[in-house]
Amino acid sequence: MIQLRSYLGGQWVAGNGSPQTLLNPATEEPLANASSGGLDLRGALEHARARGGPALRALPFAERGALLKAMADAMQGERDRLIELGIANGGNTRSDAKFDVDGAIGTLLEYSEISKALGARKFLVDGEGIQLGRSARFHGQHISVPRQGVAVHINAFNFPAWGFAEKAAVALLVGMPVLAKPATSSAMVAHRIMEILAEKKILPEGALSLLVGSPGELVSLLGAQDVLAFTGSGDTGARIRSAKNVIEHSIRINVEADSLNAAVLGADVEPRSDMYELFLKDVVRDMTQKAGQKCTAIRRVLVSRKVIDEVKSDLIELLSTVKVGNPADEDVRMGPLATASQLSDAREGVARLGGKLAFGSLSPFPHKGFFTTPVLVESPGDAVHEHEVFGPVASLLAYESDPGRIVAKGNGGLVSSIYSEDQGFLEQVVMDIAPYHGRVFLGHPKIELSPGPGTVLPQLVHGGPGRAGGGEELGGPRGLAFYMQRVALEGSRPVITKLLG
Amino acid sequence: MIQLRSYLGGQWVAGNGSPQTLLNPATEEPLANASSGGLDLRGALEHARARGGPALRALPFAERGALLKAMADAMQGERDRLIELGIANGGNTRSDAKFDVDGAIGTLLEYSEISKALGARKFLVDGEGIQLGRSARFHGQHISVPRQGVAVHINAFNFPAWGFAEKAAVALLVGMPVLAKPATSSAMVAHRIMEILAEKKILPEGALSLLVGSPGELVSLLGAQDVLAFTGSGDTGARIRSAKNVIEHSIRINVEADSLNAAVLGADVEPRSDMYELFLKDVVRDMTQKAGQKCTAIRRVLVSRKVIDEVKSDLIELLSTVKVGNPADEDVRMGPLATASQLSDAREGVARLGGKLAFGSLSPFPHKGFFTTPVLVESPGDAVHEHEVFGPVASLLAYESDPGRIVAKGNGGLVSSIYSEDQGFLEQVVMDIAPYHGRVFLGHPKIELSPGPGTVLPQLVHGGPGRAGGGEELGGPRGLAFYMQRVALEGSRPVITKLLG
Repeated sequence: MIQLRSYLGGQWVAGNGSPQTLLNPATEEPLANASSGGLDLRGALEHARARGGPALRALPFAERGALLKAMADAMQGERDRLIELGIANGGNTRSDAKFDVDGAIGTLLEYSEISKALGARKFLVDGEGIQLGRSARFHGQHISVPRQGVAVHINAFNFPAWGFAEKAAVALLVGMPVLAKPATSSAMVAHRIMEILAEKKILPEGALSLLVGSPGELVSLLGAQDVLAFTGSGDTGARIRSAKNVIEHSIRINVEADSLNAAVLGADVEPRSDMYELFLKDVVRDMTQKAGQKCTAIRRVLVSRKVIDEVKSDLIELLSTVKVGNPADEDVRMGPLATASQLSDAREGVARLGGKLAFGSLSPFPHKGFFTTPVLVESPGDAVHEHEVFGPVASLLAYESDPGRIVAKGNGGLVSSIYSEDQGFLEQVVMDIAPYHGRVFLGHPKIELSPGPGTVLPQLVHGGPGRAGGGEELGGPRGLAFYMQRVALEGSRPVITKLLG
Repeated sequence: MIQLRSYLGGQWVAGNGSPQTLLNPATEEPLANASSGGLDLRGALEHARARGGPALRALPFAERGALLKAMADAMQGERDRLIELGIANGGNTRSDAKFDVDGAIGTLLEYSEISKALGARKFLVDGEGIQLGRSARFHGQHISVPRQGVAVHINAFNFPAWGFAEKAAVALLVGMPVLAKPATSSAMVAHRIMEILAEKKILPEGALSLLVGSPGELVSLLGAQDVLAFTGSGDTGARIRSAKNVIEHSIRINVEADSLNAAVLGADVEPRSDMYELFLKDVVRDMTQKAGQKCTAIRRVLVSRKVIDEVKSDLIELLSTVKVGNPADEDVRMGPLATASQLSDAREGVARLGGKLAFGSLSPFPHKGFFTTPVLVESPGDAVHEHEVFGPVASLLAYESDPGRIVAKGNGGLVSSIYSEDQGFLEQVVMDIAPYHGRVFLGHPKIELSPGPGTVLPQLVHGGPGRAGGGEELGGPRGLAFYMQRVALEGSRPVITKLLG
């Protein structure tokens, strides 16, 4: 069996101790082993700080952006292989795996484009110069400089390529070396990407490391110039955030965690209209794409009481056409969940939601693999606003007049969506729910190839307050701030002007 | 004796339980009692969220800015009384007390000015619209909206007026109601400000509350839409940040904590030159203003070895002219520390620094009051980079060639300063220390009325990474972000354009 190694300190190293076995979640066939026992994490971080950081910071933004382009090109060259690994190790359909790999490549290319506007500088100038005194001589200018530590990225299992690339692109563009830790269960894709990049020597030594297996004491080794970005469960996010040295050294942490994303259908929308069909399509896509294992997937479907029966029967009809099975079969539309524990969590989660199943079943499949049907819950209890079921599961809720109040019960989310052509309703709901979200998606049937609310775009921020972890990533150049220190230069205008070149 | 009450839920309320007695730190005369026992903090927060928030958010920025102007005018009208309270309750010289009160008024006025550019909007538009698809129809626009909770401000004892106003100005301008908790020992200034503002009914009901006394369970009552900004010790900052509900709900926290601010004299600077004299003046001002009780005060004085003896003797000469005593006496240049425990902490801190005293003494004064002399430490141990002594205490250190490396040992600070006219040296040191600071001050003798590094200006960011708490405040419009949620609107361009008006 394949032993996945880690890439630390500029070389491939094997961990010892009891390994975790990576499976094909559709067949439960073992694919690889991984262990991080005994690896020198302290040395790996030190190597990244001492070698990778200075090498990256010596480059201007445009050259760092060219590295991202080279990473994207190298991945594009092995796209088919990466997709196959996503199908085998991730339980992805081909379409799901493409979504992940192409999202990764697209995000790298987007940040490569952004680098062109940042040009030959090695730091960012933030805003205009400011006259501070009565005379113009006393002057202030904010700049943002790269932090001098390591960017540690703890990624989620659901997007092994995209999750890696969206975080790495931004950190590397800023000039911070990256140590990425993919979720072990689906690590084969990220591991292959690291192999491609290391083999082609695309990045300076120490700029990118990969830790495969348990993070061990990783978090406890971070210092004040390091940053940590985590995507995963709220519980793990809370553990990271409360780690002793994170608190003591004010280590900058970005968390993307749970989210009870809502889709709101306006009372103005007539069944069978284009807007109505778009709404149904987006709900079904989000329930079934990646078997619902997207942090942005619609979990709460809010419709006015007068159409709830019609929406329910339409969703049931669409969901019943979704073929669930081994994603290696071309006609399968939804694959298994990623692991046995994800499947049992999803089953327990549905039970916790209360209500009843309008569609789907929790019964085990009569063959191997971590399969479930899509599940549509009706009349759920209050847990629908508190507990995210990370699978192909959504709940249908009726609203009377104030959907924004119901959406807000989720206490902070990544994205919610509104489908309406009533301008007053849109204004009201957008402003009601905006403080609780990182993104609000306004469905519109005239947008061709609309990706729906579940797709994270590098141009727009991704993250959300409260339950969603309080983080913010991407958003084009906005994402760079996390990896930089903003500092005000205060003094004589000619001196500062000369300093900034 | 005066019983200081709290202003909560739109009324003055008295706490019960064992009170804390506020003293005149120069005479140890009791001035007032304060207790927060039994106060309905949950109700106060709920009142602010339910009444103050909606009232503020209903106003456009320009009208919120007009409220700040009215606050400044009201405080200006009682400026003399506030200064007297600063002298009596804070141990401030008249100059120290003016620095605090005028800083408060100036910051309110600055944010009132900023509001004019933000105009009739109730939220901020963040950047340009973004074309997301091949057609211009698929569109994104970031906006920032006020958070719907309470801004809780836990302020430090050293700037009872300015600390209150700099935080309140920004939150109120955004549209968040404020609950301010001054440090109890010096709360009389903030209490009087609250009296002035409440009496004149300057703000909408629920927009501003004041909790005098212990914070009790305050932090545990906050939710995901609330924010908390704290200025004070790193230990308290760590306690707040690790509070259970802060971690669980990803409550947004801003901490300004300890800082070992450095002043670096370039090797090019000749003794007796204007730059040299400016450097000495800034060091002595920072050591003695507010008896060194400023988070931005210079703690580490770095000079090249060849001039260290000269600098030492010049500093000793200047420090020996500083008259220490009761600040009610006009010829006194430095008052006492704020409390008995501040004094004992400072004495213990000096002992912890190691080295020897080039100037000053730790001996008790032969009369009442929490007095110490200024203290200049030479040849300190490594603790000089780890422990902030919050009093009129600085350490003198020699550097050979690389002062930036020594400054960075402080592991994150609010501000450091460089005094040099050697462009190469300036560039090197600025870039070396920028990642570790929120502000870098470049001393220049041609700047008239230079406030030195120790003065926080509302136009420039205030905060710093690592030991300094990882926070950021002020910086003109930059400070608003903490109180807002940034959200990406994604959809049809005409719909979004119409939504934004």
